[in-house]
Amino acid sequence: MKQVKKIAIIGGTHGNELTGVHLIQKFKMAPHLVKRESFETLVMHSNEKAIQACRRYIEKDLNRCFSIKGLADLSQNSYEDLLAKALNQKLGPKGSSTPNMDFIVDLHSTTSNMGLSVIIDNENELTWQVVAYLQQKMPQVKIFKWHGDTEETSFLHTVAPNGFAIEVGAVPQGVLRADLFFETEKLLSHLLDFFELLNCGKLKKFTETVEVYSNKCLVDFPRDKEGNITAMVHPDLQDTHYQMVQKGDPLFLSFEGEPIVYEQEETVYAVFVNEAAYYEKGFAMCLSRKERVALPS
Amino acid sequence: MKQVKKIAIIGGTHGNELTGVHLIQKFKMAPHLVKRESFETLVMHSNEKAIQACRRYIEKDLNRCFSIKGLADLSQNSYEDLLAKALNQKLGPKGSSTPNMDFIVDLHSTTSNMGLSVIIDNENELTWQVVAYLQQKMPQVKIFKWHGDTEETSFLHTVAPNGFAIEVGAVPQGVLRADLFFETEKLLSHLLDFFELLNCGKLKKFTETVEVYSNKCLVDFPRDKEGNITAMVHPDLQDTHYQMVQKGDPLFLSFEGEPIVYEQEETVYAVFVNEAAYYEKGFAMCLSRKERVALPS
Repeated sequence: MKQVKKIAIIGGTHGNELTGVHLIQKFKMAPHLVKRESFETLVMHSNEKAIQACRRYIEKDLNRCFSIKGLADLSQNSYEDLLAKALNQKLGPKGSSTPNMDFIVDLHSTTSNMGLSVIIDNENELTWQVVAYLQQKMPQVKIFKWHGDTEETSFLHTVAPNGFAIEVGAVPQGVLRADLFFETEKLLSHLLDFFELLNCGKLKKFTETVEVYSNKCLVDFPRDKEGNITAMVHPDLQDTHYQMVQKGDPLFLSFEGEPIVYEQEETVYAVFVNEAAYYEKGFAMCLSRKERVALPS
Repeated sequence: MKQVKKIAIIGGTHGNELTGVHLIQKFKMAPHLVKRESFETLVMHSNEKAIQACRRYIEKDLNRCFSIKGLADLSQNSYEDLLAKALNQKLGPKGSSTPNMDFIVDLHSTTSNMGLSVIIDNENELTWQVVAYLQQKMPQVKIFKWHGDTEETSFLHTVAPNGFAIEVGAVPQGVLRADLFFETEKLLSHLLDFFELLNCGKLKKFTETVEVYSNKCLVDFPRDKEGNITAMVHPDLQDTHYQMVQKGDPLFLSFEGEPIVYEQEETVYAVFVNEAAYYEKGFAMCLSRKERVALPS
């Protein structure tokens, strides 16, 4: 694996996800916390205007603005589309062989009880090695694999050749939780240590397997003809953490009190259950497969 | 006590508090749920524009726009100030001897773990009788008394001679929880039953005592000179429900991990702990006194 010379820790890509916003603030005041000898660490807020407004975004979800196509298209000119183009210039550019950042970690939080989760969307060797290291240091860390064509994924961190998002929860939008704040800080500290070990040739490469939850499908709320939701997440799923769902298990409870069950044969695991920001995106949860992935030896 | 002929159940005064928004929707589709023989029940959304945007408000907190002074002042002309004037016309007018509504209940939710709480701001006989009845039917209901001059309080429900707000939590902004949805519905059903019994002369008047948490003071987050918060709600208080706080108990944990403790002698109880919408209002919690109030016999 190549050495990593410049990494960026980003917070406030969604302005109402305060864990990342305040961790970045803390690191700016105390840069020694993110300093390691063998590489540079940039810490920054990505969407100051949304942070000021304490809203996810001003006009459009920034973390869906980083597709190769969108970055090149000047007719995509919402506030966040333009911000994405500027961030791509600073942190990427995406697809470059000489990018400004080698690795980007983007800090998110969720109203879903996802604990400490790393959301990956590529299968680079570096990604696998990092997540294996993080899970070894903090066994509670879960790995969720978001499917999509790597080049065309539109997440912020994809402007660097490597990176991922961290999701912590459950925490409401606009709220800080001290427990999750400090756990996220610890996870970041391990991440920085990983790069230091890698650069110094001291990393013992992982060859075991890693447990990954791999997204199978998104499930929307039941809705009426006008698109209004007609049911809520079922209490048996609410607050759960990567819970197993089998045929016949309830997914929703209608406003009249009728359960709506999972009807497929395949056993799945529910992730991103009842995330506030996904009501408008049209899904209530992700159903995923639990897999053990063998790392290349 | 006088008969009650017209009551209003309001949701969506804060557009991102979905419990009330969807309960109103449900009642509109199934009006028999709120129908009683002896009075009329109006169900309505108060801030449709904020509901559409899934935001607390468009320009200004609607639930602070109903002071007598503000309602009369045309220079207070934000979107919500004008909306308040229109709602006052429809539901009040405030202070009138012949108001359009005799009682208003306004449905709110909170990111604080307040369970089912009734927020009262007056000591009318009717208010006391209602809350005593509700607590008898659902003993988990807590009563929180918000201090302020009755006429000058600026909550929506004050445009009627009687009323209160219901706060349910913990639930994030923009999220529905099935458990709290159905509990709130049950509470409202008991409320309607109360008025039916009252009007039919079948109400057995309560003469016992009622447990009330009476607001003593608001406590802001610790802040630096620029006004940025420097600490979070302490994990020992996070998620608690009307928790007792004594001298030396931690209230906050700084971003550096230092606890900040409660230093006064008086034992208090923490309410509205870590409510998202109160970060901008400048308080992290209410400290209250637990009192037993004797009802007039």
